[in-house]
Amino acid sequence: MPGSYETVEPRRGAWDNRMSRRERKKLETRRRILDAALKLMADKPYGQVKIEDICVEADVANATFFLHFRNKAALALAYNEDVAAKVEEQLASDGLNASERLQALLKIYLTEWGTHRHLMRQIVLELISQPASGATFNEVSSGLLGIVSTVVRDGQKSGEFSSKIEPETAALALVAAWNALAITWARTGDTKRAAEAHWQTLDLFLNGLRARDGLSRP
Amino acid sequence: MPGSYETVEPRRGAWDNRMSRRERKKLETRRRILDAALKLMADKPYGQVKIEDICVEADVANATFFLHFRNKAALALAYNEDVAAKVEEQLASDGLNASERLQALLKIYLTEWGTHRHLMRQIVLELISQPASGATFNEVSSGLLGIVSTVVRDGQKSGEFSSKIEPETAALALVAAWNALAITWARTGDTKRAAEAHWQTLDLFLNGLRARDGLSRP
Repeated sequence: MPGSYETVEPRRGAWDNRMSRRERKKLETRRRILDAALKLMADKPYGQVKIEDICVEADVANATFFLHFRNKAALALAYNEDVAAKVEEQLASDGLNASERLQALLKIYLTEWGTHRHLMRQIVLELISQPASGATFNEVSSGLLGIVSTVVRDGQKSGEFSSKIEPETAALALVAAWNALAITWARTGDTKRAAEAHWQTLDLFLNGLRARDGLSRP
Repeated sequence: MPGSYETVEPRRGAWDNRMSRRERKKLETRRRILDAALKLMADKPYGQVKIEDICVEADVANATFFLHFRNKAALALAYNEDVAAKVEEQLASDGLNASERLQALLKIYLTEWGTHRHLMRQIVLELISQPASGATFNEVSSGLLGIVSTVVRDGQKSGEFSSKIEPETAALALVAAWNALAITWARTGDTKRAAEAHWQTLDLFLNGLRARDGLSRP
């Protein structure tokens, strides 16, 4: 079992070697709980999966759950971090230009979304039901924002993208647009339509980033 | 005085003719209160302008204010509706293609923003401090969303824009991007930088909408 986790998370390999046995066990248990929750939530809506069910599936005592997660909602955040880490890892693979990296990024998110749509929907619904969610919006997506800014900056350096927009502005615009589409999706539940809207938006951005002609402002 | 309001709001002309003198007076008082508030808030932050000050400036009794507005925050909403009406009116003028209409729209918003930056900032801060603000986000901007969708659809019909994106998706993406920039602006207060970011984002969108080449999806 531990071996397979190291395969899934190769970047933690070096770290794992420095970790004590106890630390490693702790991480494994955390991962087992999260995996159990993801498995159950892939079939059932978030609200119908009880912490007890997760503990049975993960084969841990109920009290153990609370050693690793404050509450059920903490699972959603942990999952979100997992996806961001997965994206960063996969984008590091060589041979992709900036456009392809953004396409790969969206593909990973949509695949995760499709597999864990109940949980993803829950993440979005929790996000939009928070007070001051607009203000926390950027922080919640800060991992994604950082990745997109970096890819845009790289694309501008290589000459693939026009340099007429600040990388941070382009990233904020793209992530904000995607988040708005995700909010619409969380309310309608129409995953297929939402995926298509995400792709159309990325295409629009990529075409905009690659355009060479400026526009005169009024 | 009534004449000048009909000039400012020509679309309401027909309606005004059917209105009783009392109705017309009521609208005039409402407008006088809103104008007084806007005038005071152009110089002072929203929080420093008291309802009493507005009533003195508008030359109305304090009780009159509450016949027209539930509270001070209702002024911000009324102003927001005013700007949307102004935009719709100005975009109806002939001779502008779709790109130029979107540029004109942004120009109006940024001008209003510059003139009434304390109030605009307040609108944004109230929006993001609401519970479920993500969910109400689209409703709050529904006037703007509708206008942008219509312009995009017109641009697609005339062949100015590519038809590879749903007009509603393009509108949601652009408005969401602008709103995210406005949230950043409300927190930093850097109006000049925010205006530049808004223009860069519109340019990106217009270049994207005008691009003819498709993208292959992974």
